[in-house]
Amino acid sequence: MNLRLKSVYPQLKQRGLDALLVSLPANISYLTESLSRDSYLLVSEKGNIYFTDSRYTEEAGVFLKDNAKLKECNGPVFSWIAQTSLGLGLRKLGFEERHLSFAEFVKIKEYAKGGFDLIPTHSIIEDKGQVKDKQEIAKLKKAARITALALKHIRKFLVPGIKEVEVVAELERFIRYHGARSSAFDIIVASGHNSSHPHHLSGQRRLRNNEPVLIDLGVDYQGYKSDLTRVFFLGKIKVLVSKVYDIVLSAQEQAIKRIKPGAEMAEIDRVAREYIASKGYARHFSHNLGHGFGLEVHEDPRISGNEASAIKPGMTFTVEPGIYLPGKFGIRIEDMVLVTRKGCEVL
Amino acid sequence: MNLRLKSVYPQLKQRGLDALLVSLPANISYLTESLSRDSYLLVSEKGNIYFTDSRYTEEAGVFLKDNAKLKECNGPVFSWIAQTSLGLGLRKLGFEERHLSFAEFVKIKEYAKGGFDLIPTHSIIEDKGQVKDKQEIAKLKKAARITALALKHIRKFLVPGIKEVEVVAELERFIRYHGARSSAFDIIVASGHNSSHPHHLSGQRRLRNNEPVLIDLGVDYQGYKSDLTRVFFLGKIKVLVSKVYDIVLSAQEQAIKRIKPGAEMAEIDRVAREYIASKGYARHFSHNLGHGFGLEVHEDPRISGNEASAIKPGMTFTVEPGIYLPGKFGIRIEDMVLVTRKGCEVL
Repeated sequence: MNLRLKSVYPQLKQRGLDALLVSLPANISYLTESLSRDSYLLVSEKGNIYFTDSRYTEEAGVFLKDNAKLKECNGPVFSWIAQTSLGLGLRKLGFEERHLSFAEFVKIKEYAKGGFDLIPTHSIIEDKGQVKDKQEIAKLKKAARITALALKHIRKFLVPGIKEVEVVAELERFIRYHGARSSAFDIIVASGHNSSHPHHLSGQRRLRNNEPVLIDLGVDYQGYKSDLTRVFFLGKIKVLVSKVYDIVLSAQEQAIKRIKPGAEMAEIDRVAREYIASKGYARHFSHNLGHGFGLEVHEDPRISGNEASAIKPGMTFTVEPGIYLPGKFGIRIEDMVLVTRKGCEVL
Repeated sequence: MNLRLKSVYPQLKQRGLDALLVSLPANISYLTESLSRDSYLLVSEKGNIYFTDSRYTEEAGVFLKDNAKLKECNGPVFSWIAQTSLGLGLRKLGFEERHLSFAEFVKIKEYAKGGFDLIPTHSIIEDKGQVKDKQEIAKLKKAARITALALKHIRKFLVPGIKEVEVVAELERFIRYHGARSSAFDIIVASGHNSSHPHHLSGQRRLRNNEPVLIDLGVDYQGYKSDLTRVFFLGKIKVLVSKVYDIVLSAQEQAIKRIKPGAEMAEIDRVAREYIASKGYARHFSHNLGHGFGLEVHEDPRISGNEASAIKPGMTFTVEPGIYLPGKFGIRIEDMVLVTRKGCEVL
């Protein structure tokens, strides 16, 4: 059995749990070191059990190894989970409160018929996953490399007249030829005034001369996600655009300089936010400074003003200040950093 | 206010609810006739309210029209929802039990401080959405046309030596040049023995001569999804492959012939399943015969052996029998049908 799974047991003991039912796919993938889909994982010293249906048993049979026993469920999966838990004599079953729906919770409870208690837990596996190990860092670096390569490639593709969605099409094609499994989210290509929507839906608008084009791209490499934003310019750069760009870039640089083990996350957010505010754009930087990434493109930690916890070596998160001027344009510059022993490395 | 929203009110009255909190994005999109993201919609005769954050207020301001009031939430969205509900004097607040997590349920309950009750509801909006209106059918037909065009295009692209993931890359590119917003799910390109996994993850395997290539493709056209599977052959078709192909095709044809308003869903599943069983492949057809599609690629109805409800005109669902021989190959043929007044139309 792998170390990730083993390290869950003490956490269970500490909480007085006999087992944890893991339901978030990324968490199951993390624990089984695989790409898991449509499954549930019961982690217990009495035996780890992986529940899936017949569509996936062939592949699960290969990747599970000795990490968990495979149970093919024909019929309601929660009935199988409850029966199995009862069979193992579990009395205190933890579940992931953020990843089980209210209806699923009720169903398991019904099937349990009072034979075991369901105890909500919060982020046991996510907290583990915040600090990446060597193997994960290697995959994240590869994901970052593919992303950077794609953004370099796309530069010559950006000409007036081409549609946003066609730029997305070329990126989707390119990343797969360079090792990505897929994009990590709907790729954002936001041209001209569309760039003022932080999460623009790329559409039929055609690129025009003398306008910015914001591209936010992430790829999935063996389950690990990247997330990178750059703004390109066609033709001439207007004075205001150039001024805002410089402010955002400087805010990002100042924030990145402050990243080191022990620093507070809120402090990193504050550095960028206060600089942008000092330039008069406080209300135009409307989102958090950054977020963790790994098996999910948005995961803990959040780099936000209310996050008092400390940065640790091995964490990976984005630093992405932005200024959005509604109806005009928006600038966001996003990089991915890996916290090292003394500071951080930009991937 | 649009008719879809208005038609929710009688449903609320019938259940003794003052309001329904809609949280599934597809349901919010359905009710607001838009592409909604990261939002919650409170539907009530006292006023419909759309909660989102500053990243989306600009676009939501445009598409909401008079359907709902926009509330931009700075801070925890559930606190905003609870405060607003209390402000409106709501006492019985329905929520979607399948689409709210246990943690979210607990949070709203805490913020409510006993001021209102939270009542679980099941599929109120989904049930409405099973029968498509004219506008929806037009979009689904367009999605189907793009999909069929892409599968026609890809035929000449399938040559020995090319990787599965490169075929995916070309499809991802092509569909966007023909009007799709994106693919509707991870496109499946499964070559040779990989086709025996019903939900294969397309990978680095290269296509080879004298092997089947199964392609399962869906696109998103203005939020509406398609889902179509075809098996292509490179070089010669082996006798067993050809035999299995004919069985699957015949099973599908027989099932489609039975589709008409009033027929039981289980009956349609049974027709295909019994034919496949009669040929000795019962245990190799391991999933349901089909599923509804619309704003989600998998939605109700399920065309399965335990679904006793009757088919209605305007429903859209897939018919996709398959036979999977582990380690050898798999064949699935999937079409999309629209139930008409007398029978069905294959899209």
